[in-house]
Amino acid sequence: MSREYKVGVLGASGAVGREVLNCLEDRGFPYSQVKALASARSAGTKLEFAGGEITVEEVTPDSFKDLDLAIFSAGAAASREYAPMAAKSGCPVVDNSSCWRMDERVPLVVPEVNARVLAQHKGIIANPNCSTIQMLVALKPIYDAVGIKRIVVSTYQAVSGTGQKAIEELAEQTRQIFNCRDIVREVYPHRIAFNCLPQIDSFTDNGYTKEEMKMVNETLKIFGDDSIRISATCVRVPVFYGHSEAIWIETARHIEPGAARELMSRSPGILVVDEPENLKYPMAIDAAGRDEVFVGRVRADISTDNGLTMWVVSDNLRKGAATNAVEIAELLIRDPELLKTNWTW
Amino acid sequence: MSREYKVGVLGASGAVGREVLNCLEDRGFPYSQVKALASARSAGTKLEFAGGEITVEEVTPDSFKDLDLAIFSAGAAASREYAPMAAKSGCPVVDNSSCWRMDERVPLVVPEVNARVLAQHKGIIANPNCSTIQMLVALKPIYDAVGIKRIVVSTYQAVSGTGQKAIEELAEQTRQIFNCRDIVREVYPHRIAFNCLPQIDSFTDNGYTKEEMKMVNETLKIFGDDSIRISATCVRVPVFYGHSEAIWIETARHIEPGAARELMSRSPGILVVDEPENLKYPMAIDAAGRDEVFVGRVRADISTDNGLTMWVVSDNLRKGAATNAVEIAELLIRDPELLKTNWTW
Repeated sequence: MSREYKVGVLGASGAVGREVLNCLEDRGFPYSQVKALASARSAGTKLEFAGGEITVEEVTPDSFKDLDLAIFSAGAAASREYAPMAAKSGCPVVDNSSCWRMDERVPLVVPEVNARVLAQHKGIIANPNCSTIQMLVALKPIYDAVGIKRIVVSTYQAVSGTGQKAIEELAEQTRQIFNCRDIVREVYPHRIAFNCLPQIDSFTDNGYTKEEMKMVNETLKIFGDDSIRISATCVRVPVFYGHSEAIWIETARHIEPGAARELMSRSPGILVVDEPENLKYPMAIDAAGRDEVFVGRVRADISTDNGLTMWVVSDNLRKGAATNAVEIAELLIRDPELLKTNWTW
Repeated sequence: MSREYKVGVLGASGAVGREVLNCLEDRGFPYSQVKALASARSAGTKLEFAGGEITVEEVTPDSFKDLDLAIFSAGAAASREYAPMAAKSGCPVVDNSSCWRMDERVPLVVPEVNARVLAQHKGIIANPNCSTIQMLVALKPIYDAVGIKRIVVSTYQAVSGTGQKAIEELAEQTRQIFNCRDIVREVYPHRIAFNCLPQIDSFTDNGYTKEEMKMVNETLKIFGDDSIRISATCVRVPVFYGHSEAIWIETARHIEPGAARELMSRSPGILVVDEPENLKYPMAIDAAGRDEVFVGRVRADISTDNGLTMWVVSDNLRKGAATNAVEIAELLIRDPELLKTNWTW
């Protein structure tokens, strides 16, 4: 019988944490135990898992001692505190927060793109931002084939990216509007129901938001290529699940849309849905609950000579977060060396 | 007492037609009579107007004989049939449909951008597509100051752009989802509630939709400049009123974001809302019912050297359709020569 693993899930009761549990089950991850962890506030919560239920335990410095690996989705503050503890106690962490992503000592991994850097980890592996992951899965085969010099991207991001409370806020505000009641805002600074918010995360000095700069900086780190120039506009839209992206790329060498489509259709993690004549293209409602990155509307960028534009959709809680993290965990257990930690700071 | 005019409104009972009536009233257009016209199907409908109501009359070839001007928003087929009749009978038409926009004999007008071409009209003046109008109002001052070589734009378009039935479909589908009922699709090929549709209008041979190619071709005609290169992705989002656009431009000469913001804030038709530090930026819910084009999130395009990116929002039924048409009508009545027609084909 092949080995089974003890897996910790920190932030198990959140929107991403629940999806991590689903992914472990759906993908047949070989676990002997799944320990659901969260802050004291959520301890005791019962969560559906594998046909039964598990009870969330309060995370403590000792939580990781008997675990083989852990997946964190409890936010940056919890990751800053607990990820080094886990790493020091020999439990490698796949971290969904933004806390460690740009740390030079931490590999930032999309399995389809740069699985090779996993070998460098010291105990923490960072999972990229949802909007970055789906873009890079789609662009990787084109990058490899003809090079990419420039990316312009605008996003249509679902509220589930903000978390469970934002899902409830969109639903509540929608009901309030239909019932002619006052609209309550708690999660977002402005109404999200039947509106578009051109702000995700806070603003930085250059006028871009942190979310937009994540798409820039994480892309450079994951491709390992500082020469790519990127500009993003990230927008929250009244959709529950599934981020959509309109992407323009300028390639180093020319590629026809048909060749790009063909390359992508043969690449892991991508499902090409591109039959405009049959009104088939990627949509958030079709991507929800799926692990693939859906690519369509691939066409020449008629505003430049070596350009393509496309429409890329993926479930932000699955491939954009939970699936990508569980895929990293799947790579870790393939190689006993990768389950060791070597935390030195 | 200054002169008053007899105005016809064809398609008066549609989403844009109703807004034309509102605009005529709100803007104090000097009318002696407003005649609401529509197909036989809508004849007899009573519409609110100027504190009272008017009854829709069936349009006939004789409808235009005693009118000084007409505003059409009844779709391309009605425009093809009735606009030449009106023009021949001496009644100039401001036409909201796509029917005449690219006809060389017909001026395509955004008053803030190219009012001068109105003098060339022979009886029909075309109103541009909603997504084009708001983009060009925003870009005009920058175009004049430093030139524009390239435009990349992705849109977040409200369902009211499709018409009254689409407004009802979004509301109905939303209610169906909250009541766990089957979702009925009649206007759009896919569900629009809590979803994004990367298709507006039908597809053309190059993989772009007609809506996207309208943004290309109408921009070149209105700026009178075939050298600009443009690529658009047009997306329908679950918003009732107000189109949003993420726009990237490459300018011929460098301009700082602050200088661009300053230029735009002094230009007609634009309201700059750009205080990210106070979480102020343009949003569909704020633009709804307003006549201005709202511009914000103006910043350098960090993916190129001479580039800017911005977020532009406007009420698609007002400045994107009705307001622009009424503004053209206001220009026509300023010059008796412009109220003459010279239809020769």
